[in-house]
Amino acid sequence: MAILRFNITMSLDGYVAGPNQSVEHPLGEGGEKLHEWAVASRAFHTMHGTDGGAVGPDDAIIEETFRNLGATIMGRNMFGGGHGPWGKDPWRGWWGENPPYHTPVFVLTRHAREPLEMQGGTTFYFVTDGIQSALERAKKAAGGKDVSLAGGADIAQQYMKAGLVDEMELHVVPLLLGAGSRLFENTDARQAGFELIRTLHSPLVSHYKYRRVEM
Amino acid sequence: MAILRFNITMSLDGYVAGPNQSVEHPLGEGGEKLHEWAVASRAFHTMHGTDGGAVGPDDAIIEETFRNLGATIMGRNMFGGGHGPWGKDPWRGWWGENPPYHTPVFVLTRHAREPLEMQGGTTFYFVTDGIQSALERAKKAAGGKDVSLAGGADIAQQYMKAGLVDEMELHVVPLLLGAGSRLFENTDARQAGFELIRTLHSPLVSHYKYRRVEM
Repeated sequence: MAILRFNITMSLDGYVAGPNQSVEHPLGEGGEKLHEWAVASRAFHTMHGTDGGAVGPDDAIIEETFRNLGATIMGRNMFGGGHGPWGKDPWRGWWGENPPYHTPVFVLTRHAREPLEMQGGTTFYFVTDGIQSALERAKKAAGGKDVSLAGGADIAQQYMKAGLVDEMELHVVPLLLGAGSRLFENTDARQAGFELIRTLHSPLVSHYKYRRVEM
Repeated sequence: MAILRFNITMSLDGYVAGPNQSVEHPLGEGGEKLHEWAVASRAFHTMHGTDGGAVGPDDAIIEETFRNLGATIMGRNMFGGGHGPWGKDPWRGWWGENPPYHTPVFVLTRHAREPLEMQGGTTFYFVTDGIQSALERAKKAAGGKDVSLAGGADIAQQYMKAGLVDEMELHVVPLLLGAGSRLFENTDARQAGFELIRTLHSPLVSHYKYRRVEM
């Protein structure tokens, strides 16, 4: 059965982005260090259309997260472009003309907008009627494949609270960011009903995979 | 040189005790699960005067944390006994007549009290004039050995903020407690100036050891 999957990299002190996110620092100050393990992998290079990268457990984990994916959901902050209406020359995302999603992407926002078709199979759809609606549309678009919840923290919290996340994998790096966006804030992780199903450590990062159990 | 060392077990969602701490649940609801890895070790049994327990990496880590220790500092919540004055039949701690510290223990509190001598080398001293004073007294009592900061989260935050923690080891268990006492709250871990010096994974827990570097 198609499920909603969520994976994110978190610092040991609980942050998924550093403080003061901006166009210069889309991941916040120091936040890019969270993703060094992923950027080093071959899967990341392949996804971004470049050669090279390391193979090994981290690479295998990333490959797994992109397997059997049919659609993506993300929050407005992750898509970027500020909080106002879209305006005359609307923001096209952080990722250039060929974003690394290669699926329909449902962006939760308060401001309606026409779908934005990019290269490589990514089309951004803008959803203004909430997380349930975004999930329904994403599942339909995925055609039986899984849906990925790409982040950020605020949207993840909303889906966790609603008990809609079927699988969560946390990639924990031993970094102390000190401030930023906390993943486990405004939410009680127990409500999500997760049980640990796999742990995998590499020299750079520890991967913890949880599955939702009916309670 | 004698240093201030701090080690604590944290859930993956950032809590060092569960919600609703009470006499029935001194570690909060679900909080005892944090310490299953430690309770299983031989070092824990030895410290509590019982036989048995597992040897291995977790046991070695606990042994190391108790090596060369001359004094202990803890907060009022960790010592327990409520927040009022001490009264006629004052609280003697959670640990019975032979507490597992076996050193002088400096308890930060707002209410003065005579020292309380227990069995096995533990004497509780009650310090009412702040964290700097407690550290000075503990270092003096330690006679050249290290001082251990036993917790809880609030006192650890105060010492981290003041840049007084020389070594910190986090024992991270893949448990989602959902609520409780957060370690990295009201403090910016970067202020503490830590660099990672060792990572060690066991099947139950991951140990991350940091050292303070002058900035």
